[in-house]
Amino acid sequence: MVTRMVDLRSDTVTKPTEAMRAAMVTAEVDDDVLGADPTAFQLESEVAKIMGKEAGLFVPSGTMGNLISVLVHCDIRGSEVILGDNSHIHIYENGGISTIGGVHPRPVKNNEDGTMDINLIEAAIRDPRGELVYPTTRLICLENSHANSGGRCLSVAYTDRVGELATKHGLKLHIDGARIFNASVALGVPVHRLVQAADSISVCLSKGLGAPVGSVIVGSKSFITKARRLRKTLGGGMRQVGFICAAAFVALQENVGKLEGDHKKAKVLAEGLNQIKGLRVDVAAVQTNIVSMLVTKLTWMTIYSFAMHSGLEGLWLEL
Amino acid sequence: MVTRMVDLRSDTVTKPTEAMRAAMVTAEVDDDVLGADPTAFQLESEVAKIMGKEAGLFVPSGTMGNLISVLVHCDIRGSEVILGDNSHIHIYENGGISTIGGVHPRPVKNNEDGTMDINLIEAAIRDPRGELVYPTTRLICLENSHANSGGRCLSVAYTDRVGELATKHGLKLHIDGARIFNASVALGVPVHRLVQAADSISVCLSKGLGAPVGSVIVGSKSFITKARRLRKTLGGGMRQVGFICAAAFVALQENVGKLEGDHKKAKVLAEGLNQIKGLRVDVAAVQTNIVSMLVTKLTWMTIYSFAMHSGLEGLWLEL
Amino acid sequence: MVTRMVDLRSDTVTKPTEAMRAAMVTAEVDDDVLGADPTAFQLESEVAKIMGKEAGLFVPSGTMGNLISVLVHCDIRGSEVILGDNSHIHIYENGGISTIGGVHPRPVKNNEDGTMDINLIEAAIRDPRGELVYPTTRLICLENSHANSGGRCLSVAYTDRVGELATKHGLKLHIDGARIFNASVALGVPVHRLVQAADSISVCLSKGLGAPVGSVIVGSKSFITKARRLRKTLGGGMRQVGFICAAAFVALQENVGKLEGDHKKAKVLAEGLNQIKGLRVDVAAVQTNIVSMLVTKLTWMTIYSFAMHSGLEGLWLEL
Amino acid sequence: MVTRMVDLRSDTVTKPTEAMRAAMVTAEVDDDVLGADPTAFQLESEVAKIMGKEAGLFVPSGTMGNLISVLVHCDIRGSEVILGDNSHIHIYENGGISTIGGVHPRPVKNNEDGTMDINLIEAAIRDPRGELVYPTTRLICLENSHANSGGRCLSVAYTDRVGELATKHGLKLHIDGARIFNASVALGVPVHRLVQAADSISVCLSKGLGAPVGSVIVGSKSFITKARRLRKTLGGGMRQVGFICAAAFVALQENVGKLEGDHKKAKVLAEGLNQIKGLRVDVAAVQTNIVSMLVTKLTWMTIYSFAMHSGLEGLWLEL
Repeated sequence: MVTRMVDLRSDTVTKPTEAMRAAMVTAEVDDDVLGADPTAFQLESEVAKIMGKEAGLFVPSGTMGNLISVLVHCDIRGSEVILGDNSHIHIYENGGISTIGGVHPRPVKNNEDGTMDINLIEAAIRDPRGELVYPTTRLICLENSHANSGGRCLSVAYTDRVGELATKHGLKLHIDGARIFNASVALGVPVHRLVQAADSISVCLSKGLGAPVGSVIVGSKSFITKARRLRKTLGGGMRQVGFICAAAFVALQENVGKLEGDHKKAKVLAEGLNQIKGLRVDVAAVQTNIVSMLVTKLTWMTIYSFAMHSGLEGLWLEL
Repeated sequence: MVTRMVDLRSDTVTKPTEAMRAAMVTAEVDDDVLGADPTAFQLESEVAKIMGKEAGLFVPSGTMGNLISVLVHCDIRGSEVILGDNSHIHIYENGGISTIGGVHPRPVKNNEDGTMDINLIEAAIRDPRGELVYPTTRLICLENSHANSGGRCLSVAYTDRVGELATKHGLKLHIDGARIFNASVALGVPVHRLVQAADSISVCLSKGLGAPVGSVIVGSKSFITKARRLRKTLGGGMRQVGFICAAAFVALQENVGKLEGDHKKAKVLAEGLNQIKGLRVDVAAVQTNIVSMLVTKLTWMTIYSFAMHSGLEGLWLEL
Repeated sequence: MVTRMVDLRSDTVTKPTEAMRAAMVTAEVDDDVLGADPTAFQLESEVAKIMGKEAGLFVPSGTMGNLISVLVHCDIRGSEVILGDNSHIHIYENGGISTIGGVHPRPVKNNEDGTMDINLIEAAIRDPRGELVYPTTRLICLENSHANSGGRCLSVAYTDRVGELATKHGLKLHIDGARIFNASVALGVPVHRLVQAADSISVCLSKGLGAPVGSVIVGSKSFITKARRLRKTLGGGMRQVGFICAAAFVALQENVGKLEGDHKKAKVLAEGLNQIKGLRVDVAAVQTNIVSMLVTKLTWMTIYSFAMHSGLEGLWLEL
Repeated sequence: MVTRMVDLRSDTVTKPTEAMRAAMVTAEVDDDVLGADPTAFQLESEVAKIMGKEAGLFVPSGTMGNLISVLVHCDIRGSEVILGDNSHIHIYENGGISTIGGVHPRPVKNNEDGTMDINLIEAAIRDPRGELVYPTTRLICLENSHANSGGRCLSVAYTDRVGELATKHGLKLHIDGARIFNASVALGVPVHRLVQAADSISVCLSKGLGAPVGSVIVGSKSFITKARRLRKTLGGGMRQVGFICAAAFVALQENVGKLEGDHKKAKVLAEGLNQIKGLRVDVAAVQTNIVSMLVTKLTWMTIYSFAMHSGLEGLWLEL
């Protein structure tokens, strides 16, 4: 008898806790488009501080966080961005950086662990002497943890090396950190250290952390000033947004500490699934909260363990 | 002695009521990006029904509502939109329809009352025989009430005539209805009748209606399907967005009926200000909740009466 | 009996002279995309020198000349250009600056003489303090002579004043000089003086000057470096382009001196047409090589006198 | 003693023959922007006929030919194109399809022979059910011969299979045929058969065929109508363009027959170079007019044999 259903489709379907709802009721709010909402400011400051960057900006979604970041770094017509050929930005964000932003992507092969070979990245950087026929490389994007690689994590060492490469060639480094806290916890590295080499990071609060809505992008003050303006252009400026920021602030305080448990449950799930006939799971690859399995040799399915706060009494799979 | 401060800078600085906060606590939510949030769906359906259109879509801001609407109607490269030279889209939305959307604006002179002369609109429509050197006109935009004209209202008759012109030339008609309920109330016309000729309307819930965040765009089902996708591209898709939709739903139910009172207070304010030496207000032009005054012959200032639910005991002007 | 037909539809239908054909046969050419064509270089240098600017670049058309110029000055996403609402760029160039370049146009009313009121231009410049909701003004465009105003000329004094305004606000000034030599001749001012205030000028060689193909844009060295790259992006880089540059060089040497005669013939034509019953021509407005007439009170027709090298024995009108 | 210098940097540095110059002198020309130049029309019709397509359009460069073709097939915002990760469009054309056209590229790995695996192409086609987060695949691009693969040729069988795949998924197929005549000659297949599966082809006349300037794109009548308009937008419409079309027409008639000899000379060159110590050439890979060699194990250099009409008495290498 099924006693409880746990929805494992994605960590985006997490529901907010009572504490988050309570925080919304009492949130102090004002017009954030005019820059006056104190709760939004509190959340943005807190995320910036945790990430070790100067400033932050709340945005309605991770997609907008990445879109704004890429467009701010590539604000001059004729820009190119190097990114993983299996990255979320390249595959799952409607091609918005090109179709809305006019930025040319130069995808580099993602390895199974979500990295790109450093020498391949360097080879993809355009030689400025060829600029008559080349776009100008301005940005490298990493994704940590890397969703399409089953949530595997990029190490500090790797990230730092890419950062050095970027610096050497005068490029910026953006990290799509939709699940950066998962990576930080799994690697046992403070999150500010993990993103130290990056010029900007997009951090999602509505995935494993369980906030109802939103992401925060962080970077230098001048980056955030430009990002704020572009957020308005895209229509992401919201008025009394403090309500959802209040919930997100609770998520940040309450749930980072629970991610380690999530990862353990995902591991348990992976091991269990792997013993079911007709399923195969690469258990070693389960580093964070994502479990991918091969179903009866027909297809790969991705399962997210986000909701495992509640245990594993039930499991619903859309096959 | 000042007993209470009323912030009259803009109707965007309205604060949500207790009922709105309460609605948020108990809102039923789910992942709206996956199309599963029941509260968002309820709000979208309700606004669509009130507007007399097939479907609706919640968006984070009026700017995104207009941007999506223009871009959906102008989805083919080489499109042109006819709009008022003093309209909000042309003046205050970062030029996003061009800089993000690649749509060419063809501004037509706004009269003092917010209309554009019908014959000027028709003259601006490109002759398809000249398409070798012309962009293709695809859309006409109106704004009702018209902010830069002091909140004056476009009549049903005028709107219908523009709609006939659009139909005659195979164009779409979009209404920036940031304050369409104000216009409906001031004209004494049901809002669905007022926008009957339009293919899409962007309706703001966070201005005079007092919701914390968001707008709803309405139109045909196929329009909304395209709009939903573009909302994702822009990064306006939000997860458990039902919280703010719940508050917006309350705003819709509670506050439309209060707009008539707002307008009366704005009129009183206008008349009073006009008697102050050094100020001059065109009282006849105050049709809705916006009061514009000429200060010591130096400059015009715009005041919004949104917060007049509470009376006029105090007044704060940023001069 | 008609002894000779003169095609007066447009000065773009001019045919090259024997001298131009002869110059093509013997032209020294090389790969101009690699920057090696000596004849292209000679033409570009000569036009730059005549215009009093550092460098020049040959482009296939006036449309590309204007498009490149606007896009180079507005190379950062979120730029706005101020231009005449009746200017060639705004009306006749497919809206390319927006649809291809993502630049937001801010049209200002053109007076009957092709000017825009200085105070209207200044009022259209965006206040940088409003940049959260405004695009950034980066460029003002003039057109001299102004085609849609019947070929009337902007004076040195006017052009200088606009240049001062641009400088005051940190903007660039571009002149669409498709018929700048006509203006120079009509005003009796050296062409370099007439464009002194401009940062870039697009000069057409295939209109009244009679070259078969092409325009040259001129400006600073850094402007031309960026323009050369953008020309490649648009596909306007041509290989052994020296052939058409050779013909254009002849046009430049042979035909500038003939423009005064063209203008006189246009005046004669205007006066003659004005005496025909059912036609009306504003003779005073015929300053250069364009004659506009009101036909039987039904419509305005524009006639160009380009081909008047050959006199006025015949006249073909497409009514 | 060096008796003659042969410039082997690229087949774009070919100089026109006396016959081409002579054709220019006598060319009949008119305003082609108005669609009236008979020589342009003759060339366009001839290339269309040779390619087995309905209509053709002369453009200033191969880059513009590809840019227009991709943009016409991807005329709706949110389009994606599948193309080789080592293709000319992706690497050498400034990223114009994105930075100017807003099209999102989805590069697929090019094999050493210039093909992409059919199953990789099919895997890259977006599932329409995922359109909420995906751009829409609309086009596949091939390049034949493939420059970055040393001028190797795609077979009829391969091209047909890609065409079938495109048809199956409702996509268009464009061939960058900058050197399509080289491929046709090397494969011994009539060129119209080789491109039979394609909806559009960009054919360069200024490379191995030796015309001074220009390419022709061919396709259906409706494709060319859209292309003509976009050519105007980009600024590629030229007035009395018949001069260069006349030279290109001669190139087409005189030089296709010489390509076989070019290829033989390139083979001789490759074999000879391969015997020089410190150089290594994959002789088997030299199928057309491009010779790539490995110089002292340090770098690859690409040499084009275009100019071999004249033999191999001299050789100039930029090392």
